[in-house]
Amino acid sequence: MRAVVVHGAGDLRVEERPDPTPRLGQVAIGVSYGGICGSDLHYYRHGAVGDFRLREPLVLGHEVSGHVLGGSGFEPGTPVTVHPATPCRSCPECAAGRPNICRRARYLGSAAHFPHVQGGFSDVLVVAADQVRPLPDGLAVRRAAVAEPTAVAWHAVRQAGDVRGRRVLVTGAGPIGCLVVAVLQAAGAAEIVVTDVHSRPLDVARAVGATHTFTVGEREEVEADVAIESSGSPAGFSTCLRSVRRGGTVVGLGLLPPGDAAIAANLIVTRELRVVGSFRFDGELDEVLPRLGGLAVDPVVTAVLPVARVAEAFELAGDPARSCKVLLDFVTMG
Amino acid sequence: MRAVVVHGAGDLRVEERPDPTPRLGQVAIGVSYGGICGSDLHYYRHGAVGDFRLREPLVLGHEVSGHVLGGSGFEPGTPVTVHPATPCRSCPECAAGRPNICRRARYLGSAAHFPHVQGGFSDVLVVAADQVRPLPDGLAVRRAAVAEPTAVAWHAVRQAGDVRGRRVLVTGAGPIGCLVVAVLQAAGAAEIVVTDVHSRPLDVARAVGATHTFTVGEREEVEADVAIESSGSPAGFSTCLRSVRRGGTVVGLGLLPPGDAAIAANLIVTRELRVVGSFRFDGELDEVLPRLGGLAVDPVVTAVLPVARVAEAFELAGDPARSCKVLLDFVTMG
Amino acid sequence: MRAVVVHGAGDLRVEERPDPTPRLGQVAIGVSYGGICGSDLHYYRHGAVGDFRLREPLVLGHEVSGHVLGGSGFEPGTPVTVHPATPCRSCPECAAGRPNICRRARYLGSAAHFPHVQGGFSDVLVVAADQVRPLPDGLAVRRAAVAEPTAVAWHAVRQAGDVRGRRVLVTGAGPIGCLVVAVLQAAGAAEIVVTDVHSRPLDVARAVGATHTFTVGEREEVEADVAIESSGSPAGFSTCLRSVRRGGTVVGLGLLPPGDAAIAANLIVTRELRVVGSFRFDGELDEVLPRLGGLAVDPVVTAVLPVARVAEAFELAGDPARSCKVLLDFVTMG
Amino acid sequence: MRAVVVHGAGDLRVEERPDPTPRLGQVAIGVSYGGICGSDLHYYRHGAVGDFRLREPLVLGHEVSGHVLGGSGFEPGTPVTVHPATPCRSCPECAAGRPNICRRARYLGSAAHFPHVQGGFSDVLVVAADQVRPLPDGLAVRRAAVAEPTAVAWHAVRQAGDVRGRRVLVTGAGPIGCLVVAVLQAAGAAEIVVTDVHSRPLDVARAVGATHTFTVGEREEVEADVAIESSGSPAGFSTCLRSVRRGGTVVGLGLLPPGDAAIAANLIVTRELRVVGSFRFDGELDEVLPRLGGLAVDPVVTAVLPVARVAEAFELAGDPARSCKVLLDFVTMG
Repeated sequence: MRAVVVHGAGDLRVEERPDPTPRLGQVAIGVSYGGICGSDLHYYRHGAVGDFRLREPLVLGHEVSGHVLGGSGFEPGTPVTVHPATPCRSCPECAAGRPNICRRARYLGSAAHFPHVQGGFSDVLVVAADQVRPLPDGLAVRRAAVAEPTAVAWHAVRQAGDVRGRRVLVTGAGPIGCLVVAVLQAAGAAEIVVTDVHSRPLDVARAVGATHTFTVGEREEVEADVAIESSGSPAGFSTCLRSVRRGGTVVGLGLLPPGDAAIAANLIVTRELRVVGSFRFDGELDEVLPRLGGLAVDPVVTAVLPVARVAEAFELAGDPARSCKVLLDFVTMG
Repeated sequence: MRAVVVHGAGDLRVEERPDPTPRLGQVAIGVSYGGICGSDLHYYRHGAVGDFRLREPLVLGHEVSGHVLGGSGFEPGTPVTVHPATPCRSCPECAAGRPNICRRARYLGSAAHFPHVQGGFSDVLVVAADQVRPLPDGLAVRRAAVAEPTAVAWHAVRQAGDVRGRRVLVTGAGPIGCLVVAVLQAAGAAEIVVTDVHSRPLDVARAVGATHTFTVGEREEVEADVAIESSGSPAGFSTCLRSVRRGGTVVGLGLLPPGDAAIAANLIVTRELRVVGSFRFDGELDEVLPRLGGLAVDPVVTAVLPVARVAEAFELAGDPARSCKVLLDFVTMG
Repeated sequence: MRAVVVHGAGDLRVEERPDPTPRLGQVAIGVSYGGICGSDLHYYRHGAVGDFRLREPLVLGHEVSGHVLGGSGFEPGTPVTVHPATPCRSCPECAAGRPNICRRARYLGSAAHFPHVQGGFSDVLVVAADQVRPLPDGLAVRRAAVAEPTAVAWHAVRQAGDVRGRRVLVTGAGPIGCLVVAVLQAAGAAEIVVTDVHSRPLDVARAVGATHTFTVGEREEVEADVAIESSGSPAGFSTCLRSVRRGGTVVGLGLLPPGDAAIAANLIVTRELRVVGSFRFDGELDEVLPRLGGLAVDPVVTAVLPVARVAEAFELAGDPARSCKVLLDFVTMG
Repeated sequence: MRAVVVHGAGDLRVEERPDPTPRLGQVAIGVSYGGICGSDLHYYRHGAVGDFRLREPLVLGHEVSGHVLGGSGFEPGTPVTVHPATPCRSCPECAAGRPNICRRARYLGSAAHFPHVQGGFSDVLVVAADQVRPLPDGLAVRRAAVAEPTAVAWHAVRQAGDVRGRRVLVTGAGPIGCLVVAVLQAAGAAEIVVTDVHSRPLDVARAVGATHTFTVGEREEVEADVAIESSGSPAGFSTCLRSVRRGGTVVGLGLLPPGDAAIAANLIVTRELRVVGSFRFDGELDEVLPRLGGLAVDPVVTAVLPVARVAEAFELAGDPARSCKVLLDFVTMG
């Protein structure tokens, strides 16, 4: 089978590998589509994500959809997607009902552990049966490739509290920011204001439900009830802090650079804000799947390229001025 | 009467002024003690607190206790303290039950409005009757001078959620940090870890209930359930963010410098922290008063000086290596 | 003008009264439609609602829409609806940001105070300007007549917490229960199970978004995440308590009979349920109005009768086997 | 060894049984004291607790303290108490961080499973090592016998939210009600009002911190912020519902009879109350132990009887007019 393997910073290869065989309790999946995520881009560009540094070649990818080839408990041919996380179920966070922040979680396509947890950008992916999610009737396999990042957005909106009838600011119109917009719209937000440094991502944001969009600098502040920081930049974080009303809520979702970030933290105190992080998700994937057919997420996918064009796909995915979510297509021979 | 008036940065005077007379609905209070707060020090040193700049002479002080001289609804001689805030009762924050962050609140001894709201460092203070709080039987007037900052601490502990049985970190052992410690102890925290840049304030912290103390640098991290930032420094804020467990709570209480502050904000996201501000208080003063007799707050007051020595008192209050809370004494002729 | 006036149990009259004139700060509204609510039915049948007993003739009605005739601050002809509540803004509940449970609130068409607060079932209604809500562009005046009960439903769903992706049980498919279904659907509930003693109301429930419906007795329990009690019967309340999972939430919305009600309260303890009441609403009316055009509420209105047929309208509204929400039409001459 | 075994309703025996031997991962404890709980009394009187009916002889008891005899990981002689619950760690409630309501939990001395889980009223008790809790220095073994019910009370106060400065009503001054009072006092409640049908239990309540006590009928209502129902009676539950202010909180802690209970449930709706159950506990035992030395719980233990007088002990424990918590003493030869 083909696999998309990163060997170090800038060294991304499509390799032939033997097809893996599922053991008891495992399922083999023929992968159809895989979405390129920010962490995939980080491994590709820097050979690392935060403190997690490549120590051996790593198959990238954790946003995948496809069909069951064989294994435990699923009919071959069943269209599926995959829950990429395996929490430990015993640490204090898991015991507290928060496996999304499990301190020992394993995640598809991640160098956090050694040996690394190999990812899903390959023709065949073998995972534990309890990570497999059959698609509801009528949900296209291609759309299911965005189920995972939509679950990330879903969790972030949960962290925000009741958004019905509220004015919500979203800073950053990348794939996650735009999926947050789609989820906010479905959750009944009254106004969804989106900012980005580029203008093209704002077109996507409007297509998925933003009611007002601004490029950064155009307009500094709105009095929002809630802000969801999806840019991963300190400037975006400060915009959120400055833009919510006194007593309002800011959800920190975009991954900030490690170390200190200069943000308007004094406003947390003087305006008595509530700032909550949002990291990955847990059961939200199961909540998203039955509703994904009804969510306006298609405009988020701005390109689908065959695996053979993986370098081009990664370049495109890494340029927010030109693209939003980019999918790798393992079906079409390219 | 005598009044402690700031005319500009570094220009603090004890002036003779005519005794004010209460109008209908007002009460005249003979002030006995007044606690010097960080905002008093700011007006004295910088002629401003944040954006609030002196535009006319200002009587300082909002932490006062004394006895009723006359006016509406209180027996002369009644020992009392004063609620320094007058919220507007009509803005969105007031309507949401959060008058402590009222956008139009008036506060004793503040240049936020013009004409300024004159403060309580004077022999006679006239306030609205609904700001007056009679002291419970047995509560000494001197101790009542710390009721106001204790209410600030009480509110911060409320923002933290249930602290019973928890390990709590407090960064900064100034007057507010130490009062937070006393309140935490009364609220049933299991361990109270306190850090400060100086070692003397940590003596006070231990005297009011800290179970472990460290000077900054001695020990960087504890795995706390909750952290209450009372230093007002970005470094203290980062220590809090780094020291709480995944999913833990940080309360931002110390006023940070205006503008951006460099803090470890990325941990909010990756550890899914909850960070909540704590600003002033509302009904907490009424909760504190009946319990103030039983709280171990006396060690927080490290000096009581007669008004005649106000300059010395302000110098002392401004030196955290030598003092914690400093009271002005309006009773003793000095 | 005509007014629908109840003089005592069973004594409902359409009377001619002089047109009222707005004073300063008031607005006169030409009423177009008025929805008949359970409390209107209670006054009509029993001469009382709970402890509130008729002591003088009362114009019924608090769910009205129409057009401005004149008065302060609104252009004549503006299509509007009305917020029926006037909280005192000073009691502890108001101060806590919960004016919907204000202990001194005045409500249109209510005998809670004496003289009674006359209601809105009349050709002309005069209210304070701050009770008037202009309709958003495109919202039909007839649909706006259900804005008030939809705000009741909206508040109840807020009390439930995040319902996205959840299985929700609604007991009772009367007007409020069906509006709860419509709001749940818009709020992203995954499954909405509705029960009623009659089968016809369940047709309405399905038309507004119920995914599963049962007549009582057909099926006793579902393992729901959340249950919203909208029947006002102890049996419905017990069904909710029995049907939510351990640790789940029950919202009590339907008004139960005064005095004791026999319910499965032991489950609150052994399954550690959270049971929260939901009473009226506050700002939710302003959140509902911009979204009312997009909510599937039309099937809830099962009859619109001219005022001249008020007796027939009340009989119909009082028979849940035959009708859901019944509107009085003040426009059509009948 | 001796064991206190119930064979059926009214049939309680002290039997000789072979000493059990710990297996790998288990610990043998020499029991010193065991507290008689309401569920022990139910098995003794009715041969059942709710739906859990005796199907084989059952050693009673789940509130025990003593010393390690041998086994995994603890020094012989270590003074200890025991966590009586073994949650499944995999059901939805466990996954949600709420193992106290685990649907498959095993509990010492319970007929919920078959074979029954044998309890701790025996000279030797063998439990899993992770159920053993060493006592903190200075905590007497006898006092540690009330650690378990104190953890129950601790959890209930947690369910109540922040009680500092609040007026709290406790209905029922049995062992649990009185421990709730002690915990409330330590948690900073301003006023603790306790009601009971008998006057003697109110003496205990005052000894552990109640500020006001009333026998039922003497005074019907107080406007409390929070009420904790500890009587297990529908009348007590209604008193709680009637006595909290609008928007207040009621914690249901006392086990109500199975089936329907007649309570003033309409107030949940019209006063928008929050009613939350409180069932057992989880980590609260670990929070209680370091603080048990400082809690005023001694007056709760009104009798300590040697095992030989078990029948008398159970009769006494079952008579709330004469006793509060009764301990069995396995040390003293009687």
